[in-house]
Amino acid sequence: MAAERTETVKVALGERGYDILIGHGLLARAGAEIAARLPGVRAAIVTDENVAPRHLPALIASLEAAGIAATPIVLPAGEKTKSFAFLQEAVDKILAARLERGDVVIAAGGGVIGDLAGFAAGIVRRGMNFVQVPTSLLAQVDSSVGGKTGINTAHGKNLVGVFQQPRLVLADTDVLDTLSEREFRAGYAEVAKYGLIDRPEFFAFLERNWREVFAGGPARVAAIAESCRAKAEVVARDEFETGDRALLNLGHTFGHALEAATGYDGSRLVHGEGVAIGMALAHRFSARMNLASPDDAARVEAHLVAVGLPWRVSDIPGELPDAERLLGYIAQDKKVSRGALTFILTRGIGRCFIARDVPASEVLSFLREHLGG
Amino acid sequence: MAAERTETVKVALGERGYDILIGHGLLARAGAEIAARLPGVRAAIVTDENVAPRHLPALIASLEAAGIAATPIVLPAGEKTKSFAFLQEAVDKILAARLERGDVVIAAGGGVIGDLAGFAAGIVRRGMNFVQVPTSLLAQVDSSVGGKTGINTAHGKNLVGVFQQPRLVLADTDVLDTLSEREFRAGYAEVAKYGLIDRPEFFAFLERNWREVFAGGPARVAAIAESCRAKAEVVARDEFETGDRALLNLGHTFGHALEAATGYDGSRLVHGEGVAIGMALAHRFSARMNLASPDDAARVEAHLVAVGLPWRVSDIPGELPDAERLLGYIAQDKKVSRGALTFILTRGIGRCFIARDVPASEVLSFLREHLGG
Ligand SMILES: NC(=O)c1ccc[n+]([C@@H]2O[C@H](COP(=O)([O-])OP(=O)(O)OC[C@H]3O[C@@H](n4cnc5c(N)ncnc54)[C@H](O)[C@@H]3O)[C@@H](O)[C@H]2O)c1
Ligand SMILES: NC(=O)c1ccc[n+]([C@@H]2O[C@H](COP(=O)([O-])OP(=O)(O)OC[C@H]3O[C@@H](n4cnc5c(N)ncnc54)[C@H](O)[C@@H]3O)[C@@H](O)[C@H]2O)c1
Ligand SMILES: [Zn+2]
Ligand SMILES: [Zn+2]
Repeated sequence: MAAERTETVKVALGERGYDILIGHGLLARAGAEIAARLPGVRAAIVTDENVAPRHLPALIASLEAAGIAATPIVLPAGEKTKSFAFLQEAVDKILAARLERGDVVIAAGGGVIGDLAGFAAGIVRRGMNFVQVPTSLLAQVDSSVGGKTGINTAHGKNLVGVFQQPRLVLADTDVLDTLSEREFRAGYAEVAKYGLIDRPEFFAFLERNWREVFAGGPARVAAIAESCRAKAEVVARDEFETGDRALLNLGHTFGHALEAATGYDGSRLVHGEGVAIGMALAHRFSARMNLASPDDAARVEAHLVAVGLPWRVSDIPGELPDAERLLGYIAQDKKVSRGALTFILTRGIGRCFIARDVPASEVLSFLREHLGG
Repeated sequence: MAAERTETVKVALGERGYDILIGHGLLARAGAEIAARLPGVRAAIVTDENVAPRHLPALIASLEAAGIAATPIVLPAGEKTKSFAFLQEAVDKILAARLERGDVVIAAGGGVIGDLAGFAAGIVRRGMNFVQVPTSLLAQVDSSVGGKTGINTAHGKNLVGVFQQPRLVLADTDVLDTLSEREFRAGYAEVAKYGLIDRPEFFAFLERNWREVFAGGPARVAAIAESCRAKAEVVARDEFETGDRALLNLGHTFGHALEAATGYDGSRLVHGEGVAIGMALAHRFSARMNLASPDDAARVEAHLVAVGLPWRVSDIPGELPDAERLLGYIAQDKKVSRGALTFILTRGIGRCFIARDVPASEVLSFLREHLGG
């Protein structure tokens, strides 16, 4: 039975709390699960041009079988969709469908669609119901959980948005079979991240079982569920990101700098790949600062190599930034204050911490060595 | 001493609670009041082209004296500014000023600026600090209190926004001296509304003292403070407008229909004028339904006439809608469900209640009589 293999993760946020369901065949059960929690609603489904032909008919059929009338809103795929222009388009179409505050906006797509649709749901009529049906691995383990939504502006990524918790997250692990290998792998970097932050046993599990995670066996459901649990715990401790939630940025300071340095050109580097390199660098830098053993850095690097993720800056195709330029991008990032940088560093596998006083000079020498070698 | 005449109204919303200060000379004290509550912040001031020449220099000087660097963002005046285009402009300029989540957006203007700036503050970096410096009477007694923010779309007014409570409201009653007589009078309709909803003594106070409210004597501060107290109490009971807050819509169902019927042409009818006519109609209709005495309706009408506000549909210049068309606009309003309309009706002065089952047919006959006579 499909239902037997469904895992449920609870996000403990009091009256804003919700369930994440992870397993096979959840798309077909979406209508029933939503109707059980939000009786009598009508729906708008926000999705993108890659996901729509593959999964939209099944989702609509499932909603209609549960008596939920649904209006699809299909947007272009890709990061550029996270803009004011498409936010306005989504908002206008939700309003044109005459949905009320008690109705529901469903995001069916990757993190781009989830972030945009969640933002729209948060502002139409000052807040509608919102349900996430994440279809990329990254969205299932990261962006669909925790309520951060938003769009990009000329001033930077994700600078505009709201906290809008979903009422339900439905992570159908089968829909990942239509995801490209590269996107799957990029999402996997965030899965490994949870192990590295504070779950050493989970990291060891991934070292043993990553092939089955990629192939779609029981380890896939287990790994996604454990990732959701990890994220849900951090979110429950720090819903509005004023403290602990920063741990989730492991690998992201270096990663964002690399994304910026490659001009956000997805053909060269996608987000998860930047995170993979960033995590390797964070471990190597921690070893160099005598915080952790170099063996741990080597173990992280070996795992990234095994799954086929890049792990050093030179793995990025095309012309590479030098150490000075990379540090410039890091310093532009928000995590800077008076010459000292905030980084997520580690004392070993699964022992990360927030380091608020990392001297920029140390980072620069490290990057020089790393890029030279 | 100016400070002696400042009244403080507390909005009891727990950790989102805040003070409303009402009195003379508050613009000059703005910097000190903000710095005391938000030490170390930088500011963006959103304002409009009417308010900027009159009051912006004083506000900036006051902030600078308190060590708060401020970037002004001056937008066109008028309802059209409450749009996606100007929201994006405000957001971009706040980001261009490099403000962080802990910095503050200050709205210095009428309800248009307050609604737009509050929305911007609610979404830049997923929520910045927000302070209201309302400069119209309507904004001081209504829109700046309660945290509703938003913009208009082609589908209707205020359909997109967030709940974003300010950290402080500074209502300087002197800035109202530069407001046009007509705008002041329109705002006064909302002041009278609080008396009619549930404060019969306040309504009687206004009958005796309205001249001093208009002229700027002590009764002005008292009337604005009492209005803020009235609104703050309703908001504290029902922050997210799921129940009681609907009482604040007294006069607004008829009023909105009249605004729509006159094509939102401010030269014919501004919001507060529509509310004035709407309140008179609500009282007259309540009398017709044998809920209240006709004497109460007459008393409301007499007060509106005294202050120079319109009180019947025929007071609107230009071609008038007939009863059927008005009912059509009312039915388009969100407060409709299956032939029955939701209205705020009354059992007498200060005895309003939410009537959820008003037959559309009764409203139609009432409007026919009213427009015929
Ligand atoms: N809100 C958060 O907390 C959070 C956290 C992390 C990342 N993000 C955001 O998430 C975004 C990245 O998410 P993403 O990697 O999912 O990007 P994405 O949404 O662009 O999806 C990646 C690609 O995969 C396609 N796709 C998705 N599901 C598919 C499927 N089942 N079959 C075939 N193709 C499919 C998409 O069309 C797209 O081309 C970024 O904008 C990032 O800022 C948000
Ligand atoms: N958020 C809420 O809870 C709420 C409640 C009621 C109304 N509103 C909104 O408020 C808006 C109406 O507010 P409003 O009547 O203040 O409109 P407004 O902001 O357009 O101001 C009216 C006019 O007065 C001018 N003005 C303002 N202060 C002035 C001053 N001190 N001196 C000279 N001119 C001045 C403005 O430039 C404008 O031309 C509407 O958009 C309405 O939807 C919101
Ligand atoms: Zn990430
Ligand atoms: Zn009003």
